[in-house]
Amino acid sequence: MDRKPFVGAFARYLPILEWGPKYTKDALTNDLLAAVIVTIMLVPQSLAYALLAGLPAEMGIYASIVPIVLYAIFGTSRALAVGPVAVVSLMTASAVGKVAALGSIDYVTAALTLAFLSGLILLGLGLLRLGFLANFLSHPVIAGFITASGILIAMSQVKHLLGIKISGDTVPELVGQIITHLGQTNFYTLGLGVVGTGFLFWVRKGLKPLLRKVGMGARAAELLAKTGPVLAILVSTLVTWGFDLVGKGVQVVGEVPQSLPPLTAPSFSFDLMGSLLGSALLISIIGFVESISVAQTLAAKKRQRIDPNQELIGLGAANIGAAFTGGYPVTGGFSRSVVNYDAGADTPAAGAYTALGLAFAALFLTPLIYFLPKAILAATIIVAVLSLIDFSILRKSWVFSKPDFAAVSVTIFLTLVVGVEAGVSAGVLLSIVMYLYKTSRPHIAEVGQIAGTEHFRNVKRYDVITYPHILTLRVDESLYFANARFLEDYIYDVVAKDSKLIHVVLLCSAVNVIDMSALESLEAINERLKSTGVKFHLSEIKGPVMDRLSKTHLIADLSGQVFLSQHQAIEALKD
Amino acid sequence: MDRKPFVGAFARYLPILEWGPKYTKDALTNDLLAAVIVTIMLVPQSLAYALLAGLPAEMGIYASIVPIVLYAIFGTSRALAVGPVAVVSLMTASAVGKVAALGSIDYVTAALTLAFLSGLILLGLGLLRLGFLANFLSHPVIAGFITASGILIAMSQVKHLLGIKISGDTVPELVGQIITHLGQTNFYTLGLGVVGTGFLFWVRKGLKPLLRKVGMGARAAELLAKTGPVLAILVSTLVTWGFDLVGKGVQVVGEVPQSLPPLTAPSFSFDLMGSLLGSALLISIIGFVESISVAQTLAAKKRQRIDPNQELIGLGAANIGAAFTGGYPVTGGFSRSVVNYDAGADTPAAGAYTALGLAFAALFLTPLIYFLPKAILAATIIVAVLSLIDFSILRKSWVFSKPDFAAVSVTIFLTLVVGVEAGVSAGVLLSIVMYLYKTSRPHIAEVGQIAGTEHFRNVKRYDVITYPHILTLRVDESLYFANARFLEDYIYDVVAKDSKLIHVVLLCSAVNVIDMSALESLEAINERLKSTGVKFHLSEIKGPVMDRLSKTHLIADLSGQVFLSQHQAIEALKD
Repeated sequence: MDRKPFVGAFARYLPILEWGPKYTKDALTNDLLAAVIVTIMLVPQSLAYALLAGLPAEMGIYASIVPIVLYAIFGTSRALAVGPVAVVSLMTASAVGKVAALGSIDYVTAALTLAFLSGLILLGLGLLRLGFLANFLSHPVIAGFITASGILIAMSQVKHLLGIKISGDTVPELVGQIITHLGQTNFYTLGLGVVGTGFLFWVRKGLKPLLRKVGMGARAAELLAKTGPVLAILVSTLVTWGFDLVGKGVQVVGEVPQSLPPLTAPSFSFDLMGSLLGSALLISIIGFVESISVAQTLAAKKRQRIDPNQELIGLGAANIGAAFTGGYPVTGGFSRSVVNYDAGADTPAAGAYTALGLAFAALFLTPLIYFLPKAILAATIIVAVLSLIDFSILRKSWVFSKPDFAAVSVTIFLTLVVGVEAGVSAGVLLSIVMYLYKTSRPHIAEVGQIAGTEHFRNVKRYDVITYPHILTLRVDESLYFANARFLEDYIYDVVAKDSKLIHVVLLCSAVNVIDMSALESLEAINERLKSTGVKFHLSEIKGPVMDRLSKTHLIADLSGQVFLSQHQAIEALKD
Repeated sequence: MDRKPFVGAFARYLPILEWGPKYTKDALTNDLLAAVIVTIMLVPQSLAYALLAGLPAEMGIYASIVPIVLYAIFGTSRALAVGPVAVVSLMTASAVGKVAALGSIDYVTAALTLAFLSGLILLGLGLLRLGFLANFLSHPVIAGFITASGILIAMSQVKHLLGIKISGDTVPELVGQIITHLGQTNFYTLGLGVVGTGFLFWVRKGLKPLLRKVGMGARAAELLAKTGPVLAILVSTLVTWGFDLVGKGVQVVGEVPQSLPPLTAPSFSFDLMGSLLGSALLISIIGFVESISVAQTLAAKKRQRIDPNQELIGLGAANIGAAFTGGYPVTGGFSRSVVNYDAGADTPAAGAYTALGLAFAALFLTPLIYFLPKAILAATIIVAVLSLIDFSILRKSWVFSKPDFAAVSVTIFLTLVVGVEAGVSAGVLLSIVMYLYKTSRPHIAEVGQIAGTEHFRNVKRYDVITYPHILTLRVDESLYFANARFLEDYIYDVVAKDSKLIHVVLLCSAVNVIDMSALESLEAINERLKSTGVKFHLSEIKGPVMDRLSKTHLIADLSGQVFLSQHQAIEALKD
């Protein structure tokens, strides 16, 4: 890059310019092999997720073609596979369901528009280098949200297993509807669904050990086990066709157009865009967070680096691509990326070859899935999402951090009973409010000297030396508007109670910022202590904080002194 | 209190039980004298602020009677004088003007309702001990807001000086209207207004030195100067009556009912309450912050303590009282409280005597102000609020802290051109967002040892000893969800660039909290560094943080060690 400044400048936004020119024959072979395996896995998965989003099955495949290619050009991960994923499909169904009727043309247009808006948001955040915003979604909130979404998704597929028609966005609604309509169960559908689900579970848990036992290598067994859903689809389609189960009420995918991804356009209606904007923002952020954690996990294994802001650009391009080629919101998926990686994909070109494979499927294979039962797609989804459900975060956060536990509980509860958007928004908001509350009441410790050392520790935790006329307080938080008055109150209280005090030392080793409000509070503390005959000292102020304080009158007006170390403070004041 | 547990339990909510039984004759004399002086000052001020709020003049006096008594019972400050104040009157005009027409009965009802809601909010916050919420209003945002409000208030009174009729809530609107209507200026009004304003300015700046020169004591001169507005009112009323200026178009206060505060009731309409709720919340918080800072300033001079949550209860009771006795939102005012204090008020009983004085005025003196020109009341307001205007906060914050400067600028600008509510809300929001942004990108310093000491300092600021195979990073912020990934990225970047590294030590002396997200990030860092052959160590973890970490697997799984001090870490790892 140093020798090619022109390419270097572009390469910042076009990572393909970095790996493209160095592409080798070996890499080509690896990428092609990975592409074949991923394609086989993606066909059923894409159909299933489209069903989950309430969209025609082919849109799931379309959403995997152009977005993959665009991500290969703009993204930084070598292994990430972009396309429809379970949680984003659920969120799409929830968002689009609010503005259009299921099955209508408007519903499809709204999904395209959602992908377009989501792409614009991601692209905008990337170009403005605002990737850090995703950090406000805390790990526990995400974990809780993914778990609750997994439950919602599984519940939403039960209707396909039973062959009944219901609608609902929350667990109470879904449960109520399922119970009400239980009498309409189609037993052919139920039979297919139960057998399919059982088979897929077995493929997941039992097939790999079996293949190993018959002498297959570990990696080959792993990959072959991933093709289980294809087998389920083939057999169930043949059975449905052979026994004319459609005539017995089994719902099938039906006619799917034989076509490359069509050119489509999102709606540019401001009304529609306005009502989808909030959902698009949430989908973008959830999708980004899911995608980047997959990308970073895989990159770390090869000591590669992921640039979060460039990832936003890559995902943005992929979603805008989806909007114009018959897709819906996409992101980097965990299972498909892991398969891609395990299958040996070397460069993003593997994604491009996968796109070719899917295009081939869209053109030539769609007539073959006419008789594919929806119950089998539902079984695929259920088996896939059950691995998302993990309540251990509740126990872990209960032990480690009650505020995190509160955020997780609220997120899970609201996602299940109110909806995905309410759940994740409340989780984020609650995390921020609790953090602010915590910092507004900082931990303040009185400290003393550990005999024979220069170390100062909390008088409540260590056996330390203190002096009756000196009070040293260590405040364990940056001083800013939310806690400035708390500190004032705290110090006035202590001083009012102790008439022997002559010196108050504020030990600032944990103070990383002092803002204007805190500065005024320190000035007020200084003035008030002075008027009661107590001197106010500061010690161990950090470099950047001292730089700022030295521009103010505080230091000059201080009734006491500023000490570089607490040890110096005690040496100077103890007599 | 120890010997009287029954009284003690009540005294928490009824501070009067503490000072009441100890009331002495001396205190009575002091309180009575203060009450006389404050009453004389409050009559014109109350009339003027009612005018500012767009309400009948007598409501200003009513708002000073019962609220003062209720605050005396429930409040903790010995010197605070509660009643209408400039900023809250402006906010009342702005809030009520949105739901009712100026001069209508609905306008009065809305003002009563606003006081009632505001009282309920204050009382609720106090009982729930949520006084800390006010801390999220930073000093610079308040300073900016008060300054901008002062300008708005002064501008809003110009119409009374000119004798023209205009309306407007923002500076651009007011300026436009004044210019448009300049031709309608009434010169008798303008003459009164200009002379009045000039006289009041002179009273403020020149009278006290003059009185001192003729031999008067400092305190007496100070207090006499405060009665200047009464003189202006007497003279201007006589002039207006004697020269029949009403016939020449001068607007006067007119008929004011002779009555004790009437029993009134707020509206209990949910619609009205709903539309006033946001404004009531802002008024409550602004009023509380203004009041508590006055109370604390005065209390500190006598080493008395103010309980913020009890103050909320006191102000809540005062506002609910205002709603039922013909008042409008009230709070502790700066100028009246200072006068009360300077006049020697010893206990809250001084407030009760002031209330008696005002009740007397409301019953017997109102006919005397029929001919009081509104221009003189406007002059009183303008002279009073000009002392609120202080742009020095812009310069100070520019020098000390750019985020604070941004918050102040936005607050001032939006208050002036959009309105009081938009201004203060934006200021608060911006402060919080900037604080979160700052903590999401913490300062991380590489540190080394200062030769011959156990101190470790930033390699960029000090000449320190480092080792090529050890990297010690000091992160100057608590680790939580918003910066956990930033830390991960930072460490991976450094490690990827430096192949000689064997040990990474995270110096945690400034880490006050580690939440669940940060714990997971630390676990991820540990795992990833381990997979690249680098050991991860922690040093100087604070007590409360270590307590939490010891409940997790992190410590057991750590590839490196946990060191009590950084010095021990270097001693152990340097060879």
